[in-house]
Amino acid sequence: MITLSLVGIGSGNPEHLTLQAIRMLETADVILLPRKGAEKSELADLRRMIARDVLTTSPKVVEFDYPVRDANTPEYLDGVNTWHDALATIWSGLIETHVPPTGSVALMVWGDPSLYDSTLRIADRVLAKGMAIDVHVVPGITSLQMLTAAHAIPLNTLGAPVQITTGRRLRDHGWPADVDTVAVMLDGQCSFQHIDTEGVHIWWGGYVGMPEQILLQGPLSDIGPVIQDTRTKAREAHGWIMDIYLLRKS
Amino acid sequence: MITLSLVGIGSGNPEHLTLQAIRMLETADVILLPRKGAEKSELADLRRMIARDVLTTSPKVVEFDYPVRDANTPEYLDGVNTWHDALATIWSGLIETHVPPTGSVALMVWGDPSLYDSTLRIADRVLAKGMAIDVHVVPGITSLQMLTAAHAIPLNTLGAPVQITTGRRLRDHGWPADVDTVAVMLDGQCSFQHIDTEGVHIWWGGYVGMPEQILLQGPLSDIGPVIQDTRTKAREAHGWIMDIYLLRKS
Repeated sequence: MITLSLVGIGSGNPEHLTLQAIRMLETADVILLPRKGAEKSELADLRRMIARDVLTTSPKVVEFDYPVRDANTPEYLDGVNTWHDALATIWSGLIETHVPPTGSVALMVWGDPSLYDSTLRIADRVLAKGMAIDVHVVPGITSLQMLTAAHAIPLNTLGAPVQITTGRRLRDHGWPADVDTVAVMLDGQCSFQHIDTEGVHIWWGGYVGMPEQILLQGPLSDIGPVIQDTRTKAREAHGWIMDIYLLRKS
Repeated sequence: MITLSLVGIGSGNPEHLTLQAIRMLETADVILLPRKGAEKSELADLRRMIARDVLTTSPKVVEFDYPVRDANTPEYLDGVNTWHDALATIWSGLIETHVPPTGSVALMVWGDPSLYDSTLRIADRVLAKGMAIDVHVVPGITSLQMLTAAHAIPLNTLGAPVQITTGRRLRDHGWPADVDTVAVMLDGQCSFQHIDTEGVHIWWGGYVGMPEQILLQGPLSDIGPVIQDTRTKAREAHGWIMDIYLLRKS
């Protein structure tokens, strides 16, 4: 059986790699390397740099293009499912072509494969297509961990729960019930501007863990507009932005 | 100013260390190493092994005993606060004694310093005592990441939120509102037995990431009692247990 390893590589700094991640990549027969699409070219460059400069072995690197995701599909989830299915077809074809029957293939996954990442779902679709693969996951440092580390703050208050959610959910459903701390990911629209700012503190980070890192924090009422402005300017300057934030009610 | 680095070391396997964590430990003047207390002796042994076998330098290692936490203090939070204050006093004394005025001191933190960990709160108390330190955090792989990796499952379902909470909260407040996925940490009492099992799937792990790792998963109604039994026997066999689980409503 072929082993497919989904290897978390952290959030933009090759020093986020764990020893386990490095070993899994070094011992793979083939590394599949997504070239673009949802991924920005800097992120593909980071993967190339890891394969070239960090690993002490030279697994075969096979680059591939991402299919374009159809944002116009009426139902959001249908669009995502169609896209995952297209990717599963691409993975299956590449594995059949390049990986020996009992060999191993690895994919470098931004952050951690468990958190708002599609690779485990795509691997499930590869299995559903009848390909015999053994899926192995290596955790990696997430952008949420980089955010709290950069601000030197705990994720939770003492003994209290935390909700991890998306910008879309915060925008559509407001502050979630039963928690005072909310971590927001996948937010392209500064969704914090749609909630009541009373008593809310925000810790925000753009490009966390990368050389371009920008950090801002303060009462949401004061610093929210500063973050929106900073985010817009940074995206213009770099051509792209990845950001994340933590909200806490006092 | 003295730099205090709180370095996440992952969850029981030295291969969880990131390159950044290794570099921070290798360049520290002093490593403070907690010997026991809340920590089991295997965990102190792991830290000693990392300092001795993984690092390519030899920082000075200063071991210290944890004060005993008074579980009988009427108010839970008061007990914790008193305990954190006692630890801050110990840290301050050790730093003053062993670390040069512009030197660096590191602590190896189980998992990640952001998640249900007290070291950032203790560092705040060291600062509050008037000691000039610059606190630096290096993220580490958490037991929650090890759990999802070991089961090869995503933490969240597509675009959906997740709550991370404690056994105590689950027991006292029941299933949290607004989420279908709940990750439960710090649970010494199999608190899942107090919730309605209808439609709930559990992924459980004991000693995740360690050689002793035990994994169980299935519908909570079927597998819940099996987990309770397995947990009791494992704790008897090893003298201690660390476990964690993910619950998801279908």
